[in-house]
Amino acid sequence: MSETGRSTRERILQAAGKLFYGEGIRAVSVDAVAEKAGLTKRTLYYHFRSKDDLIAAYLEIRDQPNLALFRRWFAEADGDVAAKVEAIFRNLARSARHPKWKGCGFLRTSVELVNLPGHPAMVVGRAHKKRVEDWLCSVFEEAIALREARQLARQVVMETAGAAAAHLVRGLMPAPRKSIKVAKGRRTIRPRIG
Amino acid sequence: MSETGRSTRERILQAAGKLFYGEGIRAVSVDAVAEKAGLTKRTLYYHFRSKDDLIAAYLEIRDQPNLALFRRWFAEADGDVAAKVEAIFRNLARSARHPKWKGCGFLRTSVELVNLPGHPAMVVGRAHKKRVEDWLCSVFEEAIALREARQLARQVVMETAGAAAAHLVRGLMPAPRKSIKVAKGRRTIRPRIG
Repeated sequence: MSETGRSTRERILQAAGKLFYGEGIRAVSVDAVAEKAGLTKRTLYYHFRSKDDLIAAYLEIRDQPNLALFRRWFAEADGDVAAKVEAIFRNLARSARHPKWKGCGFLRTSVELVNLPGHPAMVVGRAHKKRVEDWLCSVFEEAIALREARQLARQVVMETAGAAAAHLVRGLMPAPRKSIKVAKGRRTIRPRIG
Repeated sequence: MSETGRSTRERILQAAGKLFYGEGIRAVSVDAVAEKAGLTKRTLYYHFRSKDDLIAAYLEIRDQPNLALFRRWFAEADGDVAAKVEAIFRNLARSARHPKWKGCGFLRTSVELVNLPGHPAMVVGRAHKKRVEDWLCSVFEEAIALREARQLARQVVMETAGAAAAHLVRGLMPAPRKSIKVAKGRRTIRPRIG
């Protein structure tokens, strides 16, 4: 692809990202994305075969940056693994106070496509959540047994979804502080609340 | 309202409930609801001023039955408060295995209306989650201090949202078993996983 082609594609994805994340994938038409990108619909369809492909690509480019953000929050926190996981929730709550925050784009897209489990964006969404879980699992494996690490990782991913969902439904509120106990031979996590 | 008027309204709400829950509120047109109810769009608009009002009414009639379901799961479970809360998650996981299960209608509607926090359906959704939280809080108050009961109730509601979201995004999987410790003077809950 030419340099121009690449930058056109990026412009479309940037416009799609702002509109899809800000308003939802069904609320936003391909016309609106083309208009925001300053292009004709014909040009948009030269780069993306369909709206469905555009939605999948919108999530695809969020995959690595999102995972990198979780990893950075984890790496920059002081303390043991438990304190570092706690930092993820603290950072998530801080992000949720931003006026442009509208929840998890992956979760929201899955909700909007609930009746289409085979949709390419659903595949991307599942793969993203799996990648976050795999990363957490590899982190926990150093502290606890393999099978328990997987379960704990799944639980933490589930709780981030719950926190995001609660923010969305109930409006902005501080997320409960979490204290998660990760210790050799234990399979207990303790969200301390209050 | 006449008996006929009432039953027409109920027919519309039943059709709306099936379609909105099954496919999502934006994916379903007022025409589709009227057609499923076997009525003209004009008749539908005689009973509901707008699609927005219809969406709010669709959630409104789920409010009490949903709360009653949680209360029944809680009441019918053996054991202490912790075991009874655990039973809510177990029943939720069982419900999620039903082929027609599509997550929490309140959460999904909030996601679809993410850009319209003042929408009447958003008001209904927030009120519902608050009612579930209030009920749980009143249950926990018998075991722990008032302020802690509120926080624990909020946490449990958040975790039900997280469990539902995880089911939706990742496909059907058994929800983690939960063991929630509710004891006088403690403010720790312990989801036991595995």
